[in-house]
Amino acid sequence: MFKITIIGTGNISYHLEKAFAQTHRVIETTVVSGRGNALSELLNENAIKNESGDGGDIINVYIITVSDDAIKAVSQHFKGSGNLVIHTSGSVPMEALPEGIKRGVLYPLQTFSRDRVVDLRTVPICIEAERKEDLNMLRQLAGSVSDAVYEINSEQRKALHLAAVFVNNFTNHLYEIGAEICAENKVPFELLKPLIKETALKIETLSPFAAQTGPARRNDMKTIQGHLDQLTSDSFKEIYNLLTQSIKTTYGEKL
Amino acid sequence: MFKITIIGTGNISYHLEKAFAQTHRVIETTVVSGRGNALSELLNENAIKNESGDGGDIINVYIITVSDDAIKAVSQHFKGSGNLVIHTSGSVPMEALPEGIKRGVLYPLQTFSRDRVVDLRTVPICIEAERKEDLNMLRQLAGSVSDAVYEINSEQRKALHLAAVFVNNFTNHLYEIGAEICAENKVPFELLKPLIKETALKIETLSPFAAQTGPARRNDMKTIQGHLDQLTSDSFKEIYNLLTQSIKTTYGEKL
Repeated sequence: MFKITIIGTGNISYHLEKAFAQTHRVIETTVVSGRGNALSELLNENAIKNESGDGGDIINVYIITVSDDAIKAVSQHFKGSGNLVIHTSGSVPMEALPEGIKRGVLYPLQTFSRDRVVDLRTVPICIEAERKEDLNMLRQLAGSVSDAVYEINSEQRKALHLAAVFVNNFTNHLYEIGAEICAENKVPFELLKPLIKETALKIETLSPFAAQTGPARRNDMKTIQGHLDQLTSDSFKEIYNLLTQSIKTTYGEKL
Repeated sequence: MFKITIIGTGNISYHLEKAFAQTHRVIETTVVSGRGNALSELLNENAIKNESGDGGDIINVYIITVSDDAIKAVSQHFKGSGNLVIHTSGSVPMEALPEGIKRGVLYPLQTFSRDRVVDLRTVPICIEAERKEDLNMLRQLAGSVSDAVYEINSEQRKALHLAAVFVNNFTNHLYEIGAEICAENKVPFELLKPLIKETALKIETLSPFAAQTGPARRNDMKTIQGHLDQLTSDSFKEIYNLLTQSIKTTYGEKL
């Protein structure tokens, strides 16, 4: 049985807390937060103890969900702790946590917003731990909320996080550009939503390489020039040009 | 009742034919194709006739689904025709069809592949026609296969097509980049699929502007620099930089 303390109150904290509250593997979840000294005091009171009073069946896990830059400082409070201490960041290595403690990582590979329900069962959770016993613990904990648990080391996780920036952050920005073009031309953005959805669903059965269509893919210079003439924003023109060239390169067209 | 002749055998032709075959508004759908003189002969035999023998209840519609560049040439065969002649292109204006005939456009705003089933009922179909009677016909025809029929003029359709390149073609290319980063780092691309899906589904309830997350959005220079160091391809670095700057500009960060 797990007793969880989540440090931080961001979106990941919120969704993990909700998921842990629903699994019978976890008997208690506490969320602690605060700034500077207030957080330090809270952690000094709670985090260090081994809580052996709970008996051997209880595994205390401290989950640090604070911003990447704060992970190192916050985790210093756990020096000397006998508990499992993990962070949830894609781009921070496990080694950012203090040496000599039971350290690990639990990275849910998904985009979380407060006002959107996410089914954690389908979310890939990447786990890493220094010691084999702790990895087994994390597999149990992660497996209690997700059906897609992967053992991923810090280097691989960093690559996944980078890839996620392309397929999530940058993709969402392309949606934003689409919305701006629609607004400028007084057509409802609504019309693009089925296309956006199908673009994402398509790659569940086709590779992105096989799914590629459009003027850049077929090297249709006339349509490409028409689009460039139509774009009023220099920045969007630049993005159009660069992605068009990159598609051409991918499919071996000479530039 | 409609009697449809589809010219061309690409993906749009294939999916339209399948959809028309299932609606009782259409009594017959023929697909004709061929190259150069062969197509010319076929069209000269079939297209020009008013087929008045079918009686007043039958509306003949010729749907040109050939590549954008070929629309003008192919449609010349319909000069003097009394039938409704339309094309299905996003970026070609209706005026590319010969003057003096009943001309129009039926543009399904979706990405079509031969090996992927698309439910046309949820696909927005943009219609345009020169004459009001023909627009009504097209509304009936499009409405028989889709629940989302929009009257869109050539300028607006061109803007939609441009926006579609961003949210479909370019987005799919970002998936491809994500897949390449995964392959290079020996992590399964599979792990990114739930994120890709959620990114698309998120904007059904949130605007892309509100949905934006990530290092560029929060101006997290350390993570951004780490990602740039990690990228091995100069072209991907350039794309990363440009989209990061564009997100920063959207959210008013000073560059």
